[in-house]
Amino acid sequence: MITKQEFSTVHERIKPYIHHTPVITSRLLNELSGANLFFKCENFQRMGAFKMRGATNAILNLTKEQQEKGVVTHSSGNFAQALSLSAKSIDVPAYIVMPSTAPQVKKEAVKGYGGKITECSPTLDEREKAAEKIMNETGSTFIHPSNDMDVIYGQGTAAIELLQEQPDLELIVTPVGGGGLIAGTALAAHHFGKNCKTIGAEPFEADDAYRSLQSGKIEENESANTLADGLKTQLGDKNFPIIQELVSEIIRVEEKEIVAALKLIWERMKIVVEPSSATALAAVLREKEKFKDKKVGIIISGGNVDLQKLPF
Amino acid sequence: MITKQEFSTVHERIKPYIHHTPVITSRLLNELSGANLFFKCENFQRMGAFKMRGATNAILNLTKEQQEKGVVTHSSGNFAQALSLSAKSIDVPAYIVMPSTAPQVKKEAVKGYGGKITECSPTLDEREKAAEKIMNETGSTFIHPSNDMDVIYGQGTAAIELLQEQPDLELIVTPVGGGGLIAGTALAAHHFGKNCKTIGAEPFEADDAYRSLQSGKIEENESANTLADGLKTQLGDKNFPIIQELVSEIIRVEEKEIVAALKLIWERMKIVVEPSSATALAAVLREKEKFKDKKVGIIISGGNVDLQKLPF
Repeated sequence: MITKQEFSTVHERIKPYIHHTPVITSRLLNELSGANLFFKCENFQRMGAFKMRGATNAILNLTKEQQEKGVVTHSSGNFAQALSLSAKSIDVPAYIVMPSTAPQVKKEAVKGYGGKITECSPTLDEREKAAEKIMNETGSTFIHPSNDMDVIYGQGTAAIELLQEQPDLELIVTPVGGGGLIAGTALAAHHFGKNCKTIGAEPFEADDAYRSLQSGKIEENESANTLADGLKTQLGDKNFPIIQELVSEIIRVEEKEIVAALKLIWERMKIVVEPSSATALAAVLREKEKFKDKKVGIIISGGNVDLQKLPF
Repeated sequence: MITKQEFSTVHERIKPYIHHTPVITSRLLNELSGANLFFKCENFQRMGAFKMRGATNAILNLTKEQQEKGVVTHSSGNFAQALSLSAKSIDVPAYIVMPSTAPQVKKEAVKGYGGKITECSPTLDEREKAAEKIMNETGSTFIHPSNDMDVIYGQGTAAIELLQEQPDLELIVTPVGGGGLIAGTALAAHHFGKNCKTIGAEPFEADDAYRSLQSGKIEENESANTLADGLKTQLGDKNFPIIQELVSEIIRVEEKEIVAALKLIWERMKIVVEPSSATALAAVLREKEKFKDKKVGIIISGGNVDLQKLPF
């Protein structure tokens, strides 16, 4: 396991490339939840999500030779944009494999950040083949969006900042998608918190992490018919053991609870967040007794939304 | 005219009752505009708009006897909520005259903040009659939402804070509705800026301020068919002379420019703002040459939106 000192070094290393995002509170949401909530606003992070942290750390950890040859990933979401932008900041080529079915707006965003897109058929097999082909041709290094230790450590730095500002948090709640954010957060809570527990929030519609913790092995999502489209991905062999060891529990929430929490955050906190981010508040509001009178950190994971497709 | 010292006293007096809101910058919006933009985020103000400042100052300026008898206004917008909440904070009764046609959600908000609602027919005449009746019955004091010197001074404190943080702003742009915000801002820029000009932004659809400055007398809006529903009100005899003296110009913007600016603010800055607030950015983007390479403050007036009625 990473030491506290090593974790601090990760944070120092990525600082020049990321924003130190604000922590926001809301009197109304405290009243509604009965808890003291501290929202770490990664929607204000560069390119709009915490993924900048992990992508930056992974690239900075490569050797000079590796950096020159570039990085490759397959993602249709925030990680594609994060890897493109962080690679651009560090002056490294970024090759992004995206399914041909990905929304044009996402492709444009990746291009805007300087990523070189290769389109492929929308199956995992085809994605992996396309990434491998690029690696063979360019000598670039594959960076997984969530199942990569450097990515996991990078994502954990949001919780380090949150705990520096609020050292006596008793709980931190994060959404669970591919597992990188929650694993990094749990490591940060372990090292930088004072007996601070980490809790995951997940839609019932994509409850692979909940079921994986129950069964003791990585379970797959089946339908994943959720508004929280960032949470459809599943855990990996690097982050799952950390989650098993350090995450107290996963709370599952219904779609209507996600919409209600999203509406509260937009209307009352006046910030634009992704549906995935709202699952964490939804979990707190669903199981209020668990959080009553406690100091609770909530990681607002990102703010990249398609305004044409809002659930309101 | 208020002195700088008196203005500082206003600010000190209301401080315990308001939030000191953050100033946000956006690299992307700087690139798009060619200017250095500093957004004063009154969408994060208590009850979601700058109106808290003016309402609070007006109530604090009343005598103890007046305060005990309460305050009354007619408004269906943010000022109704602001007067209700600031009155509640100061422990003063607030009577709010609202047209029976006002959306239920606005009535609920006023009630939630403790305002006592009297409904009337949706004409100015009926509103004034209803307000007068309340004043006669309760001895309460009428507070106008924008044409009241204490309200104007209170609204100006947002620009004082902005100029304390960015003392060398060359321009400040605000939306123009009833004229309270821009008059207060112009006074603040005059006293606290270093040759800082104030510019108004207004929809073509509600360009009463633009035409009033042209003609030299207060002009009325005719259709006011604008998305920026906070800007349909018109100037008053107290704020108009200040605007005539201290506002450099009014820039008018088209509805589609308001929507585009709104989308930029939501998508890129990740904050929820009202359409009225977006007119200021729309004005900067419409007349880029005027703002090129300048340090420009923008007052984001509020963030109270109906998520069911978005223009996206």
